[in-house]
Amino acid sequence: SAPQDLDLELLESVMGQLDASRIREDLRELSREPHLASSPRDEALVQLLLQRWRDPASGLDSAKAFEYKVLLSFPSQEQPNSVDVVGSAGDILYSCHRSEENLTGEQGRPDVVPPYAAYAPSGTPQGLLVYANQGTEEDFKELQAQGIKLEGTIALTRYGGAGRGAKAVNAAKHGVAGVLVYTDPADINDGRSLPSETFPNSWHLPPSGVERGSYYQYFGDPLTPYLPANPSSFRLDLANVSGFPPIPAQPIGFQDAKVLLCNLNGSLAPTAWQGALGCDYRLGPGFWPNGDFPADSQVKVSVHNRLQLRNSSNVLGIIRGAVEPDRYVLYGNHRDSWVHGAVDPSSGTAVLLELSRVLGTLLKKGTWRPRRSIVFASWGAEEFGLIGSTEFTEEFFSKLQERMVAYLNVDISVFANATLRVQGTPPVQSVVFSAAKEIRSPGPGDLSIYDNWIRYFNRSSPVYGLVPSLGSLGAGSDYAPFIHFLGISSMDIAYTYDRSKTSARIYPTYHTAFDTFDYVDKFVDPGFSSHQAVARTAGSVLLRLSDSFFLPLNVSDYSDTLRSFLQAAQQDLGALLEQHSISLGPLVTAVEKFEAAATALGQYISTLQKDSADSLQVRMLNDQLMLLERTFLNPRAFPEERYYSHVLWAPRTGSTATFPGLANACSRARDTSPGSEAWAEVQRQLSIVVVALEGAAATLRPVADL
Amino acid sequence: SAPQDLDLELLESVMGQLDASRIREDLRELSREPHLASSPRDEALVQLLLQRWRDPASGLDSAKAFEYKVLLSFPSQEQPNSVDVVGSAGDILYSCHRSEENLTGEQGRPDVVPPYAAYAPSGTPQGLLVYANQGTEEDFKELQAQGIKLEGTIALTRYGGAGRGAKAVNAAKHGVAGVLVYTDPADINDGRSLPSETFPNSWHLPPSGVERGSYYQYFGDPLTPYLPANPSSFRLDLANVSGFPPIPAQPIGFQDAKVLLCNLNGSLAPTAWQGALGCDYRLGPGFWPNGDFPADSQVKVSVHNRLQLRNSSNVLGIIRGAVEPDRYVLYGNHRDSWVHGAVDPSSGTAVLLELSRVLGTLLKKGTWRPRRSIVFASWGAEEFGLIGSTEFTEEFFSKLQERMVAYLNVDISVFANATLRVQGTPPVQSVVFSAAKEIRSPGPGDLSIYDNWIRYFNRSSPVYGLVPSLGSLGAGSDYAPFIHFLGISSMDIAYTYDRSKTSARIYPTYHTAFDTFDYVDKFVDPGFSSHQAVARTAGSVLLRLSDSFFLPLNVSDYSDTLRSFLQAAQQDLGALLEQHSISLGPLVTAVEKFEAAATALGQYISTLQKDSADSLQVRMLNDQLMLLERTFLNPRAFPEERYYSHVLWAPRTGSTATFPGLANACSRARDTSPGSEAWAEVQRQLSIVVVALEGAAATLRPVADL
Ligand SMILES: [Ca+2]
Ligand SMILES: [Ca+2]
Ligand SMILES: [Zn+2]
Ligand SMILES: [Zn+2]
Ligand SMILES: [Zn+2]
Ligand SMILES: [Zn+2]
Repeated sequence: SAPQDLDLELLESVMGQLDASRIREDLRELSREPHLASSPRDEALVQLLLQRWRDPASGLDSAKAFEYKVLLSFPSQEQPNSVDVVGSAGDILYSCHRSEENLTGEQGRPDVVPPYAAYAPSGTPQGLLVYANQGTEEDFKELQAQGIKLEGTIALTRYGGAGRGAKAVNAAKHGVAGVLVYTDPADINDGRSLPSETFPNSWHLPPSGVERGSYYQYFGDPLTPYLPANPSSFRLDLANVSGFPPIPAQPIGFQDAKVLLCNLNGSLAPTAWQGALGCDYRLGPGFWPNGDFPADSQVKVSVHNRLQLRNSSNVLGIIRGAVEPDRYVLYGNHRDSWVHGAVDPSSGTAVLLELSRVLGTLLKKGTWRPRRSIVFASWGAEEFGLIGSTEFTEEFFSKLQERMVAYLNVDISVFANATLRVQGTPPVQSVVFSAAKEIRSPGPGDLSIYDNWIRYFNRSSPVYGLVPSLGSLGAGSDYAPFIHFLGISSMDIAYTYDRSKTSARIYPTYHTAFDTFDYVDKFVDPGFSSHQAVARTAGSVLLRLSDSFFLPLNVSDYSDTLRSFLQAAQQDLGALLEQHSISLGPLVTAVEKFEAAATALGQYISTLQKDSADSLQVRMLNDQLMLLERTFLNPRAFPEERYYSHVLWAPRTGSTATFPGLANACSRARDTSPGSEAWAEVQRQLSIVVVALEGAAATLRPVADL
Repeated sequence: SAPQDLDLELLESVMGQLDASRIREDLRELSREPHLASSPRDEALVQLLLQRWRDPASGLDSAKAFEYKVLLSFPSQEQPNSVDVVGSAGDILYSCHRSEENLTGEQGRPDVVPPYAAYAPSGTPQGLLVYANQGTEEDFKELQAQGIKLEGTIALTRYGGAGRGAKAVNAAKHGVAGVLVYTDPADINDGRSLPSETFPNSWHLPPSGVERGSYYQYFGDPLTPYLPANPSSFRLDLANVSGFPPIPAQPIGFQDAKVLLCNLNGSLAPTAWQGALGCDYRLGPGFWPNGDFPADSQVKVSVHNRLQLRNSSNVLGIIRGAVEPDRYVLYGNHRDSWVHGAVDPSSGTAVLLELSRVLGTLLKKGTWRPRRSIVFASWGAEEFGLIGSTEFTEEFFSKLQERMVAYLNVDISVFANATLRVQGTPPVQSVVFSAAKEIRSPGPGDLSIYDNWIRYFNRSSPVYGLVPSLGSLGAGSDYAPFIHFLGISSMDIAYTYDRSKTSARIYPTYHTAFDTFDYVDKFVDPGFSSHQAVARTAGSVLLRLSDSFFLPLNVSDYSDTLRSFLQAAQQDLGALLEQHSISLGPLVTAVEKFEAAATALGQYISTLQKDSADSLQVRMLNDQLMLLERTFLNPRAFPEERYYSHVLWAPRTGSTATFPGLANACSRARDTSPGSEAWAEVQRQLSIVVVALEGAAATLRPVADL
């Protein structure tokens, strides 16, 4: 009998059953109330998910909540955080808003958490204000170069350019005492800032909107690195925790930022630092004498955040595989939001619920069971630093490394309606392409999602010609522990902007109290056709991964990446390395070995596909495909980068798109003398990559080759 | 059709074909000349192995040599190492022998490497002699307690008690300038020391015999930790290498040790420090006035060892599996010796050759091909620190972790003729028992190897009652990187002593120029029946692991170990931990979860075995069994212990046979105050074990359980 394989009719039927109006209704329910991690509503949503996944008519085989005790950070209710302009006598001249304006009746609820910088330490620094652009290392160096004394100042920075926590770290290095972070209308609203031009009148951010966020620099529960945060787990002393901002920080809206920034004294900020607040941005320090505040006025930042050990749950649901139940395709999204979180994360959760409903219904009808197991996950406390997903990978490290086929993340499912956007590692490219080619694009015209996508994001592949381009995976959502810590082929799928129409850093109400159901329903995706498109794309990818006899992971697509990393290294670093007698020859050889092994494996696959191979033969092949990503892990490659052990996708500084360990080591070594420890580290990093590539090639070669 | 399974008739036939006289002839050839790692004769043996494994009538599917460039250490030919008693005027009063006596014509060859301590640094320290027993930390503390000034002395130590390198490390901590190491007749010869009582007149060590050895404290090539020593690999600067002895060291024979030790001044050494040199052992410092040397005579140790980068090869040969070629059962031994190495390692290599000949012959006849792949390995440079096997595991880390079923090591195959001796992790116990029950013991009587074995080594198992006891795996041979670095279920098999007949630390000519073919042929195993017994046992285990449909790894035998570790922790550490408010409760729960999962899996296996399960179902089960050992690895558990990441078998100090991380952390914390970092580390180690056990249980549970 023929082995169980992907059933195209069933796939077509699933595509047809994914219902935009159900996604809309689920989104309405999910975003009805704020559901901050560990809040009562977050707990209620745990129950909602369990109920859905245990539904006799449309549920999964089983579902379960996994609770962890994790360290979160909240503003004090008794002592609200505040940002004030203070006169020389200590008198308050201006107070920034402590909450967002109640524009739709949803912003005034007591369960809307006031804007704050999670994990920023408490403190009440006061000093002259300076403007520090995005708070990058270069920005502070520029201020220093301009002769501005930063010691004891309060730095006003704008979102973008550097991570949230990095702004505070960079500032503290220069003696800054406190950091403010605001969203410039130039960065989020394409310059618009009037109430009439912003939500609820458009999708733009209202003047009082404030982006909340985690300022923790790593991910996972801060007290339990590399260990699951079970109640009995070892926890670090707070004194030994690293990664929290070193100085108090607080986010504010552009309404308040305008009052501060447009009153600044000092020289004009560089052109690139100017924004859309309607005044010239100056650097400070302090206010100009003819403005709203006396020149010696200071800014006082009062932060009273509290660290709390709280319970946070992941919800897991499984459809047992019929043939290979020990192979897991994981599909997940976080559940927790900052406020109502209609876009982030509920647009993804609504898609997750609709997809699990359709598959659950088929399952309960008895008409279908996937070849491999499908696991759905609703992660807790992502907003504080991917905590739920990280604890999950810590708890089930071995089992997941052995058995996980792929991880599919759909967090924000719809940023905007223009095009598909996929981030992922090369092995998932082909399966996403296959899915995207078979689904109609929601926009005008009669294009497939693929044909629409290629108009917005594309690249020229040496193998395929012009193809849609996938982004690479950073640490922006719950895929991070899967790809960086476990080495699982991963992807993140969404619909997003036409970049020719907007330069918004992200959708405007991101992490504010204005990210509500009406915002989505009226401005982001009226009709929910983009949500449906994402559900179909992700659903098709999920079915292809779980049902195909031959795993649709095209590992040879890594050859493209490796070749381009190699070429970038040769072009940008080759001369420098040669000066230090470091040869890229072994790396060239390793890339060639990978390419040869991948090509030969491709031919072997073609042969097997023609020859009606038996299940065991295909399982062995699939193991090679599944485990390839694991061969790029080296837990000793970057000991200082917590969780990052994938030698191709670890964080990279500098502009050369090449192997991150090599790039980072080179930029550290560049200004040291020959024979330095830094140059030895360059050689070590080069060897680490070479060994990983040779190991990857060995995994792809015929299994009985020596 | 029935799936390919172990064929008992074939097994019986293989047992019958394993030929003692061929083992004898192979041993004669292998040990004909000294074959120190990287020597011409070592290279010639690489060719011999390749030729055997490529033989058209009895070879394997393919064979290949893998060369590494590794850092070895040799004595200088121009400047021989020396140990002299020196008068106050610098005159030499006595010189220790620089080579062993040419008793059989084989010790005088130019290719016999003079006795030395590999990796001991060069230097010519001179000072008063002290006697430091075995050179343990306690021994030096005892000398200190007796008021003996150790600064600048030469410490004479005897082999045993502490590792070679550890003697020098302990000595250097007390200011000792140089270390001598000798073999006491009490420890190796059951007290005998006369030429008439020793080789070539008996199996005992002649007075001039000197044990060579590596004094490097880690394993693997010292310049390339965690990276394979390929020519292009990153290498540490010598200044950054750790693990070499800090002070010069040199081994001597008991003939010379007697001259030194029996002339010592000072107080009488403790009773436990006395030996069989025929005099009272005194502590020194210096010589007694009425002896052979003036009281102010000193001992001068001249070490001129040279570090050299040398090529060393592993030879690998493979028999491709017929059904699951991507599952590897590895069988290996090192090839290099210190001198002729008839026992160490050639007794194992001769068994390896005979086993590969018999299986190769079946293969070439076309009558048999194993279900899984069998890989034979001949490792290079083991004597210098398991270098070849370690580099192999570094080079093929991912592929081996994914696919290796088990590692079977037979280094010295016959120490003596009394009984089987097996070291291994619990999952291999059952397959060794199965094999041992079916093979006749070579000794008197009509016992199986199993029934003979249980008379010498046994324990009471709560599950099985009285069974032979397996030892645990340290780092004594090439299994170390497999179990500790890769987490592969491993074992080491040999025939050994009747401990009621001898207390010899190891066979007497170990690592000396007297370990020759005639020594084996006349004294160790005349008739080679013990060699044959080991070949049969190892061969049966190898066939069972490679041919059985259901993998014969009984993972539930880990329950015994975990329960005994837990009980030891409760008894020996429970009160102490309770004083520091550390509960063993989570560990108890984790052990119980493991036991429950293992029991349930056992029932599932029984069901599958009854139900004629299909190949894919059994493959999934076998993956659970194969990968269990991997779940105990945590590369972040013991960052300071190079390569050790198995949380159950890492090195343990102290006498409590429990989880090593917990035991070690407790012994470090014991004398610190509550709330110290050391007590935090105890809690961290406890969590690491709990997470590992919970992860192991998760791997054993039904694969679709959440
Ligand atoms: Ca954790
Ligand atoms: Ca190495
Ligand atoms: Zn999100
Ligand atoms: Zn978010
Ligand atoms: Zn050996
Ligand atoms: Zn040895």
